[in-house]
Amino acid sequence: MVRLRAHNISMSVDGYMAGPSQSPDDPLGVGGERLHEWVVATRTFRAVHGGGEGGTTGVDDAFAARAEENIGATIMGRNMFGPIRGPWPDDEWTGWWGPNPPFHHDVFVLTHHARTPVTMDGGTTFHFVTDGIESALAQATAAAGGKDVRLGGGAATIRAYLHAGLLDELDLTIVPILLGGGERVFDGAGPAGYECVEFTASPAVAHVRFARAATGTP
Amino acid sequence: MVRLRAHNISMSVDGYMAGPSQSPDDPLGVGGERLHEWVVATRTFRAVHGGGEGGTTGVDDAFAARAEENIGATIMGRNMFGPIRGPWPDDEWTGWWGPNPPFHHDVFVLTHHARTPVTMDGGTTFHFVTDGIESALAQATAAAGGKDVRLGGGAATIRAYLHAGLLDELDLTIVPILLGGGERVFDGAGPAGYECVEFTASPAVAHVRFARAATGTP
Repeated sequence: MVRLRAHNISMSVDGYMAGPSQSPDDPLGVGGERLHEWVVATRTFRAVHGGGEGGTTGVDDAFAARAEENIGATIMGRNMFGPIRGPWPDDEWTGWWGPNPPFHHDVFVLTHHARTPVTMDGGTTFHFVTDGIESALAQATAAAGGKDVRLGGGAATIRAYLHAGLLDELDLTIVPILLGGGERVFDGAGPAGYECVEFTASPAVAHVRFARAATGTP
Repeated sequence: MVRLRAHNISMSVDGYMAGPSQSPDDPLGVGGERLHEWVVATRTFRAVHGGGEGGTTGVDDAFAARAEENIGATIMGRNMFGPIRGPWPDDEWTGWWGPNPPFHHDVFVLTHHARTPVTMDGGTTFHFVTDGIESALAQATAAAGGKDVRLGGGAATIRAYLHAGLLDELDLTIVPILLGGGERVFDGAGPAGYECVEFTASPAVAHVRFARAATGTP
């Protein structure tokens, strides 16, 4: 079974996974970068994002590394792909990650505006999915070659898959800061049927893994 | 300086300090009792609430114990005092805690409905404050005899003091569960000027202590 997994979803104590006043210059919102200091410091993050040798090991790195294990495709919301809203003005924007993005597999971007796929260096192709989260999951599953599918952000995308009961695993990282506003991971009626299956903490953050309870399919 | 401190404020990962559908039979809402399992298990809780010897020690007990240190008065919201809403029908309801409540000092209950003070066994007197949170704080400060004032719940009371900038210290405990609804600790615009000054975790929960940043008063 291919599983849909979200990893390293960093949330402030007041529930935000991005700060207030997001903008092209401040894509994570005011204070939002503090959410990711723990992962940026890890050995895994440096290796994946071209930061060279070094970086922390230990529990934070172990969680960062899991995000890379057995992943064959990625789904993300459009706001994680870039700051452009509305119809695509041209094909210039190809994501935040430069010519060789750190995915190296097919990435499915949820959007209301069609666009032809963009093939990048290093094996990453961005596909633009306009017919909803189930379709994106089906396409990503087919592309994953038997591996799992990773769900990126942002908050609206995580919420959509959580509430549809389509997310199998959510690795949430709680960062001991208050952002005071922004995009909430949990908003309105909560997702049903998820249980904590792992809880641990580093000196910097707490890691909580939620898994969808078995649904009793025959 | 007398400080206003909130301790053992237990919150689910999705941000609730009580579950949905609170009622007289289910004062913490559906699933809300799971928020307090960590503290009920501690040696301090058992000692304070007449649970006898035993109980856990370690980081959870250390946080539970701090809630009892140097406290001379307590403020709480009416919903923490009891399930009655609207005007008091009579003087029968004297709180959830029996004839000898575990406070042993003056307790100030925020309410819109006046009532004469109720003196209980063991040194606890419940006072009913109808003229707002600043008045309750002034009265509690006067009653505390130089010690600090503890702020109990519920969520609305915590939020009111946080947003007014009157809370000096908030010991928040994050419990790795999802409640899916209920009363939020952080709602709407966030409180400004609070910083994490301590972060630690037990195998069961994470403890985050927020303190009001120094305001630079001369």
